Amino acid sequence: MPSNFESVHWHEEIDHRSVSPELQGTDWSIRSGTLKGGLSEGVDVVELNNGSLRVSVLPTRGMGIWNARLGNIPVGWKSPVERPVHPAYVNLESRNGLGWLDGFNELICRCGLSFNGPPGTDDGNPSPIESHVTLHGKIANLPASHVVTRVDAKQRLLSVTGVVDESTLFGPNLRLTSSVFTELGSNRFSIRDTISNHGAGPAEVQLLYHTNVGRPFLEEGAEFVCPAEVVVPRDPRAAEDVNSWSSYLAPTAEYAEQVYFFRMAADANGRTLALLRNNAGDRGFCVRYSVKQLPCFSQWKCTQPEAAGYVTGLEPGMNYPNFKSFERHHGRVHKLASGDDITIELDFDVYDSASQVQAAMAEIAELQQSAPRVEPHPTSPFC
Amino acid sequence: MPSNFESVHWHEEIDHRSVSPELQGTDWSIRSGTLKGGLSEGVDVVELNNGSLRVSVLPTRGMGIWNARLGNIPVGWKSPVERPVHPAYVNLESRNGLGWLDGFNELICRCGLSFNGPPGTDDGNPSPIESHVTLHGKIANLPASHVVTRVDAKQRLLSVTGVVDESTLFGPNLRLTSSVFTELGSNRFSIRDTISNHGAGPAEVQLLYHTNVGRPFLEEGAEFVCPAEVVVPRDPRAAEDVNSWSSYLAPTAEYAEQVYFFRMAADANGRTLALLRNNAGDRGFCVRYSVKQLPCFSQWKCTQPEAAGYVTGLEPGMNYPNFKSFERHHGRVHKLASGDDITIELDFDVYDSASQVQAAMAEIAELQQSAPRVEPHPTSPFC
Amino acid sequence: MPSNFESVHWHEEIDHRSVSPELQGTDWSIRSGTLKGGLSEGVDVVELNNGSLRVSVLPTRGMGIWNARLGNIPVGWKSPVERPVHPAYVNLESRNGLGWLDGFNELICRCGLSFNGPPGTDDGNPSPIESHVTLHGKIANLPASHVVTRVDAKQRLLSVTGVVDESTLFGPNLRLTSSVFTELGSNRFSIRDTISNHGAGPAEVQLLYHTNVGRPFLEEGAEFVCPAEVVVPRDPRAAEDVNSWSSYLAPTAEYAEQVYFFRMAADANGRTLALLRNNAGDRGFCVRYSVKQLPCFSQWKCTQPEAAGYVTGLEPGMNYPNFKSFERHHGRVHKLASGDDITIELDFDVYDSASQVQAAMAEIAELQQSAPRVEPHPTSPFC
Repeated sequence: MPSNFESVHWHEEIDHRSVSPELQGTDWSIRSGTLKGGLSEGVDVVELNNGSLRVSVLPTRGMGIWNARLGNIPVGWKSPVERPVHPAYVNLESRNGLGWLDGFNELICRCGLSFNGPPGTDDGNPSPIESHVTLHGKIANLPASHVVTRVDAKQRLLSVTGVVDESTLFGPNLRLTSSVFTELGSNRFSIRDTISNHGAGPAEVQLLYHTNVGRPFLEEGAEFVCPAEVVVPRDPRAAEDVNSWSSYLAPTAEYAEQVYFFRMAADANGRTLALLRNNAGDRGFCVRYSVKQLPCFSQWKCTQPEAAGYVTGLEPGMNYPNFKSFERHHGRVHKLASGDDITIELDFDVYDSASQVQAAMAEIAELQQSAPRVEPHPTSPFC
Repeated sequence: MPSNFESVHWHEEIDHRSVSPELQGTDWSIRSGTLKGGLSEGVDVVELNNGSLRVSVLPTRGMGIWNARLGNIPVGWKSPVERPVHPAYVNLESRNGLGWLDGFNELICRCGLSFNGPPGTDDGNPSPIESHVTLHGKIANLPASHVVTRVDAKQRLLSVTGVVDESTLFGPNLRLTSSVFTELGSNRFSIRDTISNHGAGPAEVQLLYHTNVGRPFLEEGAEFVCPAEVVVPRDPRAAEDVNSWSSYLAPTAEYAEQVYFFRMAADANGRTLALLRNNAGDRGFCVRYSVKQLPCFSQWKCTQPEAAGYVTGLEPGMNYPNFKSFERHHGRVHKLASGDDITIELDFDVYDSASQVQAAMAEIAELQQSAPRVEPHPTSPFC
Repeated sequence: MPSNFESVHWHEEIDHRSVSPELQGTDWSIRSGTLKGGLSEGVDVVELNNGSLRVSVLPTRGMGIWNARLGNIPVGWKSPVERPVHPAYVNLESRNGLGWLDGFNELICRCGLSFNGPPGTDDGNPSPIESHVTLHGKIANLPASHVVTRVDAKQRLLSVTGVVDESTLFGPNLRLTSSVFTELGSNRFSIRDTISNHGAGPAEVQLLYHTNVGRPFLEEGAEFVCPAEVVVPRDPRAAEDVNSWSSYLAPTAEYAEQVYFFRMAADANGRTLALLRNNAGDRGFCVRYSVKQLPCFSQWKCTQPEAAGYVTGLEPGMNYPNFKSFERHHGRVHKLASGDDITIELDFDVYDSASQVQAAMAEIAELQQSAPRVEPHPTSPFC
């Protein structure tokens, strides 16, 4: 988790003392503040603390989730970019279209909404307003408006909601309405996102949840457990170690990232889960989602040295983070009609006991009817 | 007019109760505030309310005019970009040099000062500091300094003045000093801009007033009325409908913008006017200016669906918004000597009665000695 | 010195009345404030006033030094960019990679840390994250965090320290920790910079102190005095007047900049100095540094008209400000191992008497054993 060595200016707090009696058993709070200093100056943060789990949301960075903490266990990773970066300091055009990396350090960072893969010229889009794409899209560097925090006494939920517009004249007019919520005393937080097309015509949508976890979940011998039906290496580099996709190395000098694409099994409703567990199997981070909403899962292995950012990404997406024209060619770019919207719901669990980890693994085993097909070479997971 | 769904933090107000007795008959005010939330965070706004007409100026966006309101009649348009965008969020280089569109929603937005047409490489300018041009120039995304509001009791004028610098080392050093003012109780607001060259050598200047109006002025059957001498379609798309340049469609699916260039007749002093009137002829928006200051008028027809932005532009300019080298070739790029300045004065009237609309049409008819020459194909209006 | 026509909002001040008795003899102060208005909005400034000399540091602009003042003598220059520009308004990618010039007006501006020369594609760097370089690098447009002011009663020093990170994932992770300090009553301020490589692997570092001085030091007949061993013109334009490298013209219409590269003699510890003195020889600005830390000195002659920015640069650097691949080819790009750091110490003296100027000239003469070798054509000063 990033070191928060500089102060946050907290300007608002509500907590258990200030509301109805039924919410007074737990030491919960919602705090709203603004980061101070350096590249973080002006970044708003909302911390939902349900009494057990804290989760920090960054409205200024597209409602991304900075980090979480369950008791003393930090959930997130140590990016070389130490603190949240205000979008005014992120030039997506810089670094050959890779400037997005200058602001990347969240636990959960959305990639999208109009495009979410690598940079380049999208020849499949005739509009010059849309054809130039930069790494991972704009949404993580657009500030939310209409930020509202809520305490739902009946459901015992704390939440924050915000609206992020990715709009331009003669181009996409997409709106993300995002809620992050957590139940009092639980080890879970959830995201409920609605993407709506406010434009006059159909719009392409790409969305991926770049969910990034480091220690103490990631470590040598940590495992990625999921109900994979198909596992495909992204490229020759990933193909080198495709058979050990599920296990992780210690921080490794000169390690170059490896990405694997998955088709996941799911239950009758389309819900599935993917788990990162530590070596001892007594800590875990689990993402639960729907393959109907997010059919394409990517695993990002980045077990480089600590100083460079030791991290793995569990990334459910509407598509794989390939170049947009490639995804379009494979029918994985969603088209949203004018006025339509889609809703995506994810849960994130933090486990601090072996029994919780085992229970999640049992769920996964239940979903997985047979061993996955592991492709030796890059190919489409859906072919 | 944009929906102002989020609050403005008004931090200063003067009104009729606070000043000299002679200004107490009218319920006027000047308010200064700062927009909050999302992409608007930190955008300063100054609202001049003369008792009848309100006009909102955006110092942070180059002294552009966000919108106006006469009684209950909104003056402006509904851009898909809903609220004013802080320049920190507008990357002019993005979208293949079309990033300007990400922040475009004003009633009046200046295009300039060094360049104001489409993006590209201006081969006619040998300096690499100046040869890369982006859509519509920098001035609308530069914040004003020295912002001062004034109440002139003698002339019964409310005004706001600001200074916007478009400067760099080894390049243009242009200053816009802009005043927006309105007389108590009137249906008019005015702009008085001075552009001065603070550089050591001569500087090229381009300036166009991108004046954008939607409902309730623009509608099916609305008319553009002006003392045209010559009407020229910008391109083949505009040529398709050149004979109906003066009339407007309802919001039309798949409509692609059409632009017409005009040479206008004017009175002995060079003053002229152009009017947008609604179908019934009882509402109108009129721009009055000098063809000596602004010889080139462009009409932007953009009757696309409401959600995409149903709008027309009445755009007096020092040049047409063609690529800079093209305008230079046709002698329409102004050169300003070191230390020199030019002043431009425009009035904008809002009409809410048939009699006002008819009076403006009569004025136009008076100026127009004969039917305009309507060119069937793109050509220069001055040839 | 830039005209400070708009207000600074000073929000903190400590001075001689507020601290220990031993610091009460001098009328010193440290003020911290934020610039208001236009492109300067939000730029933090820290003014160290030692009773004789004031120096204004800009944490928001990479700990650059805006200007200084000794009594009534301003130290700095009049850039066409009049006031400090917030980095949110500087797009380094703009103007064909020369956008840095839009924010350039400091007395001392660092160029670096990953690259510091002209823009272009650095073919010697295989990473797309690093290969696209823009003029003079990022560091001057990155805000400092951890800004702390200090009064050291024992050493009678006022200081401000800040930390500036130039970091990205999969790229450089360099940290500048900069202190600016000045002794009570002195005519000197000093910089102590440490650049540390927080990345996992070795990192290239480039750094140059773009120190820019105008009137009343620069004027017709002003002289640049230094213990040059070798003087090399940068290009044919500089070669034209290589023999008069040490003397300055009055503001000259159409003057194109001339840059000379130097190898300097130094004392046994590697310390050396370079002086700009006025025509009468009773005012001087002197930079003292170590050739071990900063082996490459560049002189920037820019005696263009006042309105364009009449200025000269005294620029000690780790390298010459040539394109990065050229400097790498000549072995002048420093490589810093993971976890390593380098420290650079410079002093800047302001002289307001002939005796001070003469003393500095005597020091220089002492270091210089023989006349410099003046190369007629561009070549490497170290060959």
